[in-house]
Amino acid sequence: MDDETTTPVTVLGLGLMGQALAGAFLKAGHPTTVWNRTAGKADRLVGEGARSAPTVGDAIEPGRLTVICVTDYRAVHEALGAADVELDGTTLINLTSGDSGQARATARWAEARGARYLDGAVMAIPSAIGTPDAVILQSGTRSDFDAHESALGALGTVTYLGTDHGLASLYDAAGLAMMWSVLNAWLQGTALLRTAGVDAAAYAPSAQQIAAGVADWLPGYAEQIDRGAFPAEVSALETDVRAMAHLIEESEAAGINAELPRLLKAMADRAVAAGHGKEQYPVLIEEFGKPGTR
Amino acid sequence: MDDETTTPVTVLGLGLMGQALAGAFLKAGHPTTVWNRTAGKADRLVGEGARSAPTVGDAIEPGRLTVICVTDYRAVHEALGAADVELDGTTLINLTSGDSGQARATARWAEARGARYLDGAVMAIPSAIGTPDAVILQSGTRSDFDAHESALGALGTVTYLGTDHGLASLYDAAGLAMMWSVLNAWLQGTALLRTAGVDAAAYAPSAQQIAAGVADWLPGYAEQIDRGAFPAEVSALETDVRAMAHLIEESEAAGINAELPRLLKAMADRAVAAGHGKEQYPVLIEEFGKPGTR
Repeated sequence: MDDETTTPVTVLGLGLMGQALAGAFLKAGHPTTVWNRTAGKADRLVGEGARSAPTVGDAIEPGRLTVICVTDYRAVHEALGAADVELDGTTLINLTSGDSGQARATARWAEARGARYLDGAVMAIPSAIGTPDAVILQSGTRSDFDAHESALGALGTVTYLGTDHGLASLYDAAGLAMMWSVLNAWLQGTALLRTAGVDAAAYAPSAQQIAAGVADWLPGYAEQIDRGAFPAEVSALETDVRAMAHLIEESEAAGINAELPRLLKAMADRAVAAGHGKEQYPVLIEEFGKPGTR
Repeated sequence: MDDETTTPVTVLGLGLMGQALAGAFLKAGHPTTVWNRTAGKADRLVGEGARSAPTVGDAIEPGRLTVICVTDYRAVHEALGAADVELDGTTLINLTSGDSGQARATARWAEARGARYLDGAVMAIPSAIGTPDAVILQSGTRSDFDAHESALGALGTVTYLGTDHGLASLYDAAGLAMMWSVLNAWLQGTALLRTAGVDAAAYAPSAQQIAAGVADWLPGYAEQIDRGAFPAEVSALETDVRAMAHLIEESEAAGINAELPRLLKAMADRAVAAGHGKEQYPVLIEEFGKPGTR
């Protein structure tokens, strides 16, 4: 490949995800330098053409794209805060998992040292890196993203979210809440149906169909939230609450866990008590938007 | 239409759903008799060709298919228990919302009076009735379902679940748990992102994509449950628990509700405490399958 389509890249951190990231850069032809806190993790990548740097300071240089993916933000600061590290003129892309506050604080810290900084989240497992299924979220200054979008494309489907460095973490957290909620709802249904002798495999296609079907409603329901008006076009919240009581009764009668059904009803009950019984489900955004009970 | 493709049908109960059911039967050419506890609800249907019966006893006759869809099972027993009602030789299809215990008890009650009985659940809003989007679940004796599958096809996509009369209610409850869970997870994410100035409409497509993506995992995860083996092929539960702690922190830091994230973590914490930290998420079926805390 010629110089126009390759970008020298450094990958800091060679856990399973870091190794996958470095491997994808190498496969796309980008000259790749790697570093890890403990030795040995670089061996396979060196065999594939990577250069192994002995220190972070040696791995980073001005004008070079640096991707960091380590255990947590404390490890980010440890690695980048070493005495021999010069961040001035570098571009850092931090794919370490953390919260939006850490992302914003680390952006200020890096920018104060002269670095351009993008915070990201990897919505994929290591084996998906390098395929379109790997969604990589990015937040920070648009021009910094634009300058490196092409190189980042080696990792998967790269999406720019906005200027606020905390956005990638927030989208990541929201996505995880959806992931676990779909799984828990499926487990609730599976537990219920197993009491009637139905295999998990027999129920799964039905759960799959309903989850995908309800997902299709979200853009329309989102419009209600953005308008702040919740007319009961499909059903009224008070009708949902009656059916939630059935779900609790079914779960209790079957001798399975009823904590999820009880939380569903508790949130909806509060919205009804606040006078929203004749409105549609998304009116619950008001309950979700405030702290609630511990 | 000739006699081979039309079936005389009675619809008891003319709420929004009952009216939609009767309308769909009429549209498909089935001679339709309707009854409602209070008068007036039949007028539009009579205009479309229905016969309005003055009493339940007048509406029901042997060999005729009777569909009942009223407020609750108490109303079912009130309607069918009237002195002039003769159930012997009839086929009843009960689409009233209720729990599996009510369905099984009503089946025994009706069968003791000589009726054939199927219990069902309508997984659709009234306006979808008569289209393939309306899923109608049926449980009871297979031959009773087979005898009326063609006529019921006028209502939507009809699915037979099994002999146990409680199955339709259980699938319905499981499906509702999925529906509310997807909505609540989306509301949690929406509330989180609104604190960073992201509109609900901007986030919805991402939530939609993740819900549908996770739904695709369910058949594979169901195999783990049916095998009773949960190898961490994608990730280990203890890794999920750490990310759940981040979700709680994000929610609390943003000043939004954190009850859903806390419930997610509480369930997973218990599975880790029970020794399943190195296994994969579906091992949580063990927690969902037992009563838990109130």
